[in-house]
Amino acid sequence: MKKIAVDAMGGDHAPKAIVEGVNQALAIFSDIEIQLYGDEAKIKHYLTATERVSIIHTDEKINSDDEPAKAIRRKKNASMVLAARAVKEGRADAVLSAGNTGALLAAGLFVVGRIKGIERPGLLSTLPTVDGQGFDMLDLGANAENTASHLHQYAVLGSFYAENVRGIAKPRVGLLNNGTEESKGDPLRKETYALLLAEDSIHFVGNVEARELLNGVADVIVADGFTGNAVLKTVEGTAMSIMGQLKSAIEKGGWKAKIGYLFMKDALRSLKKTLDYSDAGGAVLFGLNAPVVKAHGSSDAKSIFSTIKQVRTMLDSQVVKKSVEKFSIKEDSQ
Amino acid sequence: MKKIAVDAMGGDHAPKAIVEGVNQALAIFSDIEIQLYGDEAKIKHYLTATERVSIIHTDEKINSDDEPAKAIRRKKNASMVLAARAVKEGRADAVLSAGNTGALLAAGLFVVGRIKGIERPGLLSTLPTVDGQGFDMLDLGANAENTASHLHQYAVLGSFYAENVRGIAKPRVGLLNNGTEESKGDPLRKETYALLLAEDSIHFVGNVEARELLNGVADVIVADGFTGNAVLKTVEGTAMSIMGQLKSAIEKGGWKAKIGYLFMKDALRSLKKTLDYSDAGGAVLFGLNAPVVKAHGSSDAKSIFSTIKQVRTMLDSQVVKKSVEKFSIKEDSQ
Repeated sequence: MKKIAVDAMGGDHAPKAIVEGVNQALAIFSDIEIQLYGDEAKIKHYLTATERVSIIHTDEKINSDDEPAKAIRRKKNASMVLAARAVKEGRADAVLSAGNTGALLAAGLFVVGRIKGIERPGLLSTLPTVDGQGFDMLDLGANAENTASHLHQYAVLGSFYAENVRGIAKPRVGLLNNGTEESKGDPLRKETYALLLAEDSIHFVGNVEARELLNGVADVIVADGFTGNAVLKTVEGTAMSIMGQLKSAIEKGGWKAKIGYLFMKDALRSLKKTLDYSDAGGAVLFGLNAPVVKAHGSSDAKSIFSTIKQVRTMLDSQVVKKSVEKFSIKEDSQ
Repeated sequence: MKKIAVDAMGGDHAPKAIVEGVNQALAIFSDIEIQLYGDEAKIKHYLTATERVSIIHTDEKINSDDEPAKAIRRKKNASMVLAARAVKEGRADAVLSAGNTGALLAAGLFVVGRIKGIERPGLLSTLPTVDGQGFDMLDLGANAENTASHLHQYAVLGSFYAENVRGIAKPRVGLLNNGTEESKGDPLRKETYALLLAEDSIHFVGNVEARELLNGVADVIVADGFTGNAVLKTVEGTAMSIMGQLKSAIEKGGWKAKIGYLFMKDALRSLKKTLDYSDAGGAVLFGLNAPVVKAHGSSDAKSIFSTIKQVRTMLDSQVVKKSVEKFSIKEDSQ
């Protein structure tokens, strides 16, 4: 039985969306057990009770505007902190929250703890590509600064994730750079390039430009946290702006545009579906001793379900355990 | 009379698109004089001769795959190099090319030369916002690495550009960062934040996230060249992917989608127009002794016309001259 600790109080639609997502997951996956941390009365209101779900009551929670590290230290009984502690103490195998990202990163680092040999865990998400395959990118902003050695670890971790969780044989790993030639980039990129080229355990395909990301140029993209964060937010912002503009073009376009929209509805919906990668689950703080997964703050029940499914796959594939082994071997051999 | 040196041989559609854009500009602006550098016979084939245009023949040109610095050094008679030299030697006031970006940057730095006091010229472009106003961003990749002092200069230069060339009073200057709070970012961002806060000549509005760029959150966005390059290419790649997906959704959507498209055509065209910022001209290597402007490689006659218009505005507003004064005062007072 896979035990997943869920912060029921994090996210814009908590606890309703969280609990409803949990209901769906429990109904479909018979090999998971869920611990819900939060306000018992509110949780009960939405919960379909089974013998595989329990509620651990707490009044405290971390708010979206709380200062992350401080919140983790001071709010010792917050739902997110209790969920992380359950993993730390072996009562759960993974933790999931749709709450304050910074606080979950802090809880991951300080409560769940790093894999021995991993210097700086990175935030990994699966992003959409036009062919529907998607790609994994890290670090998306767990760190403001990274060294080449961190990026080297992200390449190995990302490749592990793509292979074990997404089932991609020999994932193509690319380094985000300002040009495709080997000589491109700042010293950080040049140093990383050399490390990735020498890393036998991954299939390194070289430098990749941001323009090509959504075209599926690689299965795993390695970036420093600052650039990765900027690229992720640019993809989101650009997609939202264009979809918003499309909507306003239809609204301002008079009767012709409106009739056109009625006919095109299905086609537009399929476009939206390609862009929507909430099916791929949440963002993983990867490099920790257990899966710590952040669902989007605006998650609905369906996204929470997808994120639980993702956590289940991570546990099933033992991707964290394999990472622990990989990096402990590396440490020993050094 | 404003004298503009134009590389007639650079770009995917050279010399046709270049010369036709020049024809349009000469017909509309009576205060410009154009020098066309390149293959005389080919240029003549498209040129509408006037007394304000001259051809300086050369057989040599820089190719898109030439190694930039090497090409500038070795191909001394390339159309781009001759155009840059005309500026250096006072025979022209500005240079425009749609050719090899790296080579134009090198020609700008090594032939035209930096403004005294400017450490590292930055690449600036006007990008689209949903309200149609656009924003200026730099550095978009002239440098792979920048210091806080460079970013400080970009803020001043960008503000100068927005005010003088785009006519924006008191441009709002934002620093691209991984969060909006003052405390966010790596050491480079924190140091830059302090410098911009203390800079009286600009209207600094604080940190800006990449998600908000197209929403018009600021008139000028300051970034290091590596991140700026990644963000620019992500905007381009995401927009192209979505428009491509929209097209394929229509194609695959059967007769309903096709009828819908016929009705929605105008609305979709207006969407495309908002996203198309070629009207704003080309990318300026800003911080040099004269306007050095790169038109997009795929430029058609209309884009070349827009870029000439932009160069004319730069000369008219004396934005470079004002920058020279600003930075020479700074140097003296230090």
